[in-house]
Amino acid sequence: MQENFIIDTNIFINPDSYIYFGNDPDDALKNIINIAKEKKIIFFIPPSVYEELKEFIKDDIDPNIIKRKSPSSYESSIPALFFYDFIDEMRQRINKGLRVAEKFARKNLTKENEQEIIKTLREEYRVATRENIIDSKEDFDLILLSKELNLPLVTLDNGLIKWALKLGIQVITPKDLKQLLENKI
Amino acid sequence: MQENFIIDTNIFINPDSYIYFGNDPDDALKNIINIAKEKKIIFFIPPSVYEELKEFIKDDIDPNIIKRKSPSSYESSIPALFFYDFIDEMRQRINKGLRVAEKFARKNLTKENEQEIIKTLREEYRVATRENIIDSKEDFDLILLSKELNLPLVTLDNGLIKWALKLGIQVITPKDLKQLLENKI
Repeated sequence: MQENFIIDTNIFINPDSYIYFGNDPDDALKNIINIAKEKKIIFFIPPSVYEELKEFIKDDIDPNIIKRKSPSSYESSIPALFFYDFIDEMRQRINKGLRVAEKFARKNLTKENEQEIIKTLREEYRVATRENIIDSKEDFDLILLSKELNLPLVTLDNGLIKWALKLGIQVITPKDLKQLLENKI
Repeated sequence: MQENFIIDTNIFINPDSYIYFGNDPDDALKNIINIAKEKKIIFFIPPSVYEELKEFIKDDIDPNIIKRKSPSSYESSIPALFFYDFIDEMRQRINKGLRVAEKFARKNLTKENEQEIIKTLREEYRVATRENIIDSKEDFDLILLSKELNLPLVTLDNGLIKWALKLGIQVITPKDLKQLLENKI
């Protein structure tokens, strides 16, 4: 069985994930660390993602179990085909964003509904352009580190999952992780 | 001196470029091919970009001088740092696109001005999200082929230039090309 994992912040802070391990982010993290200690498992996390995690966690995070490691981004490369796919996806997303913009340009905005309409525009635009996309350094750090260390990535971010799979990275859901941790002798 | 080049369609079809070589795209292409023949220069062009070129050129295109070659995209890779830069740029562009969308959502659209406003929205959105970006397979084919063959890229597309320079590709402007062709013995 796989010993170690790359782990994403959402495992601890998304309620759809942490319920498998505890009542809240701190509780889930404490329980995961305890099982990991017992079963001699290590989780690697990019420093950029660790900073996100710390914003949600009050307790100290055991550096023997949750180890910070950045990908060797000055030495790594990615397949050209991955980049072709990404350009194509971004182009489609930008077109979708324009359709959203046109839809809202046609709406009648008044002083009364302005706040509500702008809020809806932002949400629809976000979904059109950014949902299921890797759109941050943190996302790409996770993918690159998984590839570099040849370790499974634990996440429930659909964008990360989609693009990690293109690079042959093994992806583990929170539910799978719970089973893997419990079954490990 | 450099013998061969990778060449972009805009060299022949953009008036800012073809004026250096002829009165119209066909005339410019004919003249460039004649000088190239004489000076034993070859231009490589990705098939995807060649298809764009053919849409603007009535004459046959001499395959001994304008050679079609695709990049080996199934074997090539790009530095991870290039991808980090690209994610960051796309994120900024998508945010700029949202600012444009919000601006136009706040405009009062009537039956009379609708067409004009939507047209302006599309143009401002295009500039915000796509200007000076590599946003197509054709763009990336040019960059990848220049890198693979280690040849200078002749283009006046600012997006291509910006991203080609990040990969150490030598970039030649139409004006430079004219001088290079004329001075070559």
